[in-house]
Amino acid sequence: MTSYTAPVDDLRFVLNHVVGLEAIATLPHCESAAPDLVDAILEEAGKFASGVLAPLNRVGDKEGSRLENGVVRTPTGWKEAYSQFAESGWNSLPFEPEHGGQGLPWTVAFAVNEMWQSSNLSFGLCPLLNQGAVDLLSEHASAAQKALYLPKMISGEWTGTMNLTEPQAGSDLAAVRTRAVRAGDGTYRITGQKIFITYGEHDLTDNIIHLVLARLPDAPAGIKGISLFIVPKFLPNADGTPGRRNDLRCASLEHKLGIMASPTAVMAYGDEDGAVGFLVGEENRGIEYMFTMMNNARLGVGIQGVAVAERAYQQARDYAKARVQSKDLADAKGSAVAIIKHPDVRRMLLDMRAKTEAARALALYAGTQLDTARHHPDAAVRAAATARVDVLTPIVKAWSTDIGCDVASTGVQIHGGMGFIEETGAAQHYRDARITPIYEGTNGIHANDLAFRKTGRDKGASARALIAEMRATAATLAALPGDDAAVIAAELSAGLSALDQAVDWIVATQAEGDLRGAAAGAVAYLRLWGNVAGGWMMARSAIAALEGLRAAGANASFLETKLVVARFYAEQILAPSPALLSTIHSARNTVLALHDDQF
Amino acid sequence: MTSYTAPVDDLRFVLNHVVGLEAIATLPHCESAAPDLVDAILEEAGKFASGVLAPLNRVGDKEGSRLENGVVRTPTGWKEAYSQFAESGWNSLPFEPEHGGQGLPWTVAFAVNEMWQSSNLSFGLCPLLNQGAVDLLSEHASAAQKALYLPKMISGEWTGTMNLTEPQAGSDLAAVRTRAVRAGDGTYRITGQKIFITYGEHDLTDNIIHLVLARLPDAPAGIKGISLFIVPKFLPNADGTPGRRNDLRCASLEHKLGIMASPTAVMAYGDEDGAVGFLVGEENRGIEYMFTMMNNARLGVGIQGVAVAERAYQQARDYAKARVQSKDLADAKGSAVAIIKHPDVRRMLLDMRAKTEAARALALYAGTQLDTARHHPDAAVRAAATARVDVLTPIVKAWSTDIGCDVASTGVQIHGGMGFIEETGAAQHYRDARITPIYEGTNGIHANDLAFRKTGRDKGASARALIAEMRATAATLAALPGDDAAVIAAELSAGLSALDQAVDWIVATQAEGDLRGAAAGAVAYLRLWGNVAGGWMMARSAIAALEGLRAAGANASFLETKLVVARFYAEQILAPSPALLSTIHSARNTVLALHDDQF
Repeated sequence: MTSYTAPVDDLRFVLNHVVGLEAIATLPHCESAAPDLVDAILEEAGKFASGVLAPLNRVGDKEGSRLENGVVRTPTGWKEAYSQFAESGWNSLPFEPEHGGQGLPWTVAFAVNEMWQSSNLSFGLCPLLNQGAVDLLSEHASAAQKALYLPKMISGEWTGTMNLTEPQAGSDLAAVRTRAVRAGDGTYRITGQKIFITYGEHDLTDNIIHLVLARLPDAPAGIKGISLFIVPKFLPNADGTPGRRNDLRCASLEHKLGIMASPTAVMAYGDEDGAVGFLVGEENRGIEYMFTMMNNARLGVGIQGVAVAERAYQQARDYAKARVQSKDLADAKGSAVAIIKHPDVRRMLLDMRAKTEAARALALYAGTQLDTARHHPDAAVRAAATARVDVLTPIVKAWSTDIGCDVASTGVQIHGGMGFIEETGAAQHYRDARITPIYEGTNGIHANDLAFRKTGRDKGASARALIAEMRATAATLAALPGDDAAVIAAELSAGLSALDQAVDWIVATQAEGDLRGAAAGAVAYLRLWGNVAGGWMMARSAIAALEGLRAAGANASFLETKLVVARFYAEQILAPSPALLSTIHSARNTVLALHDDQF
Repeated sequence: MTSYTAPVDDLRFVLNHVVGLEAIATLPHCESAAPDLVDAILEEAGKFASGVLAPLNRVGDKEGSRLENGVVRTPTGWKEAYSQFAESGWNSLPFEPEHGGQGLPWTVAFAVNEMWQSSNLSFGLCPLLNQGAVDLLSEHASAAQKALYLPKMISGEWTGTMNLTEPQAGSDLAAVRTRAVRAGDGTYRITGQKIFITYGEHDLTDNIIHLVLARLPDAPAGIKGISLFIVPKFLPNADGTPGRRNDLRCASLEHKLGIMASPTAVMAYGDEDGAVGFLVGEENRGIEYMFTMMNNARLGVGIQGVAVAERAYQQARDYAKARVQSKDLADAKGSAVAIIKHPDVRRMLLDMRAKTEAARALALYAGTQLDTARHHPDAAVRAAATARVDVLTPIVKAWSTDIGCDVASTGVQIHGGMGFIEETGAAQHYRDARITPIYEGTNGIHANDLAFRKTGRDKGASARALIAEMRATAATLAALPGDDAAVIAAELSAGLSALDQAVDWIVATQAEGDLRGAAAGAVAYLRLWGNVAGGWMMARSAIAALEGLRAAGANASFLETKLVVARFYAEQILAPSPALLSTIHSARNTVLALHDDQF
């Protein structure tokens, strides 16, 4: 396994020149994101990621987390790394200073998060889910609950989890059966089993704060009868120290394809007299609250897709430079060369890199919109940014995680036979990446979300607003001199025309009431969105590179690379994308044509 | 893990109605392939695959093969299954009766081989490689060698291996360093290390016959200085019983991503005084001989792609029928339904199935061409069929194995969270499939083979001959009534136009001397070929289904399904394929633009 070097220059370029961190740093509560401080944060985070977390990635894969007598042991070195992570303040980056946060914009937190996930996806899940839990409690918990839990969860002294899934309730949370009964003292007693609970049990901290969905005996049926509870592993004393052990335990850990070090727990609540739970907000509004956490986590999982892609790229690039095999095609008399000289290996590397850069930029752009939605002084701007985040969330989640798997697979391929050998490291990325299109909502569900809630519900208004903005970028780029600008602008324009028609079709098909027909084309619709929005980001990257190249003292090699990558993306990924339009339209012809027994 | 049911009806349909087994059965040496016998073979093979091999697939994954004190132990039940396999005569199917073979056409052997690989990819590798070794010795060994080795390798009493790769010589066999010295008695002494030797050591048989590439001290440098040797684990006595242990050993087994039960050995030859080797054919012609084996094995690996796709499809389909989750989109008041009711799950299942059926038909079609090339009485027909096999081999190998990985990944996705849990079984297919685009030549190397040797060398003549034949099918289909026929024919025609232009471009680019530019587009060129040739097979399937539906007593549900699958393929897979043309052309613009240090 090769080392990991945080792509600080790439991140800085995207933040400063592609997604506009400068404007974000002028928003209220975001002022601390001055360029110097952000630079320092990126550098330090990069050092921590490559120096502390990356070396533990393979260790974690080999050892895994293990359940021993009810206690989950994380792999060698994990506990020390976590302590160092929390003590260095990395956990508190994006949170409000009121409870100990550093109040940095999400845009910056996303960039830093990429490094945690790249260096060690299994490790990174713990702070990622904790972030979602903190976000949820910040928004929906009582003042007393905030005071009791947030400082410790923000510092990382305790971690938070998300307890949604049950054996019969995966994507369908309406089917949640875990019971909550009123104890008469304002608390509740929770009984039931939850599965797939990431870091549901571990030895990294003194306490774990579970956020648990459960149903009261008199609750309405379905999704509107679910409440949300804080169920701590140890009930906190009034002074905030962990007190009595709660009635909950880790019943088993799953044996998984990847992310071996991240304990995926089956949690049993209330085996004895019921686990003590504390209601968040009002009864029966749990799903609504949980969505706060899920939206945050979804963008975070999208960033995992970028992260694993970046890591797989670095691994494959280093191998391709070192591995000597076969002559150069254009030099039949020569000696064997490093395989990076072979055109198809170069093509694979560029494919990996172009997809990674496009997905990274789109995720960071979503970060800027999240910050704008939270902090812009103008309510209309906030509303528009909220709608933008809503459209982007399923795209960032699903498109980027598909890219993560795709790029990790290409990384294996570049290694040839060595890619299939576990000690090389490429195979771990391939295994680890595969969970990301599944958890936090399968990518198919996000495609439906994009087609129905995010496109159909407002009759395509938010989608078209984004398309209009992308068109403006294409026009700006088309006006710049040179072949690269012309090609990238033309492919983006063609992609936008197709996307425009796709939006019309999705809206019209829903208006006709053909929901199943629209759903049949939804995944292709999301892919078209991703490819085009990614192309938009690469167009902005190209504009920045062209502008940069005109400046004195420019890093020409770096900027020329950005141009080549953007053009590769336009010609190899964006150019074939309009052909997705017909697949969106035609899917309903066949997808709905067979009886179940014909499969 | 769900059970495996051999797709006997599907195989029979393809053999009898799509690729024309009937005509093959009229060829000399192929007469035994009468429909009744072939039916019986398919049924019996199906029973063996599902009843004996499939249940061992998960066992093999969990236990793996292990090296213990120099001996490789295959998993529980493996040895008994292998004995039963050999005793039932499955090993001898396609070989000449002279040495104990059953003399069935390769077309039939391919269909049966799919079942071995589907039920248990790790197991299936052993007879697959043995088949290649038998083929090689049949063609290039001396009469005495044939008499000594072939009967036992054909019966399966002994197995054969393929020893090419060394640490510095993977794709580049010119770099082979293993030494062979003349012993003075007509034999040779072999010294060196080989890696990635599939079933290089195992406990299934009394002897293992290694075919080893090595270099004589006075051999010319490079690829033309490599000789091929038979290096048995035990030197056979004159009566054919295994005699003295040869100087070779398994030094270690690789720890791999998948195919855990297939021992991937590091082989050490000549640690003591040199392993005794017997020259095959003439000195320095080893690579030429080995290609006989490799071409056979390449088609076999392509079938592994089909096989793992079929298995993943069955697994995902069964899960989708059983797993109840969320309401039907069109029935908001209803209860939760089996997930196969959800449009995107149906779409994924159809995608898996359409790709699998197209790849299967193309592999079996290649089988018919192989049989024609070997046995047709007319030399001109044989030559044309040989050229056809040459074009198809890289496509069947690379396109089908990409499909295997793609389909196995979709299978994981359909399972949601359960797909990531190893006990479900979907993840094993995902892991196992991943080797197939790598071994027997990486798919990138096959893309170059298709672009250079198979297209450029004859200036596109063989490629255009196949395109002309595909156009005739499109015309036949277009003349049939109905929307399905019209749509499938139109998409095939559009694909063929793009392919025609791609062939022109590949030929012209090589003629200009831009080898690196052609190589940059080679993978997209191969994909276009696969998608269109697969579409051709689906068009033939649609013709057969339409004809079948007009016949009395037709199985309408079966044939209608074939039509829907063919139309799905046309609209979802073939329709976007012409867009690959521009990616073939444009790759050289960017792929060759960066310096190595810009990656």
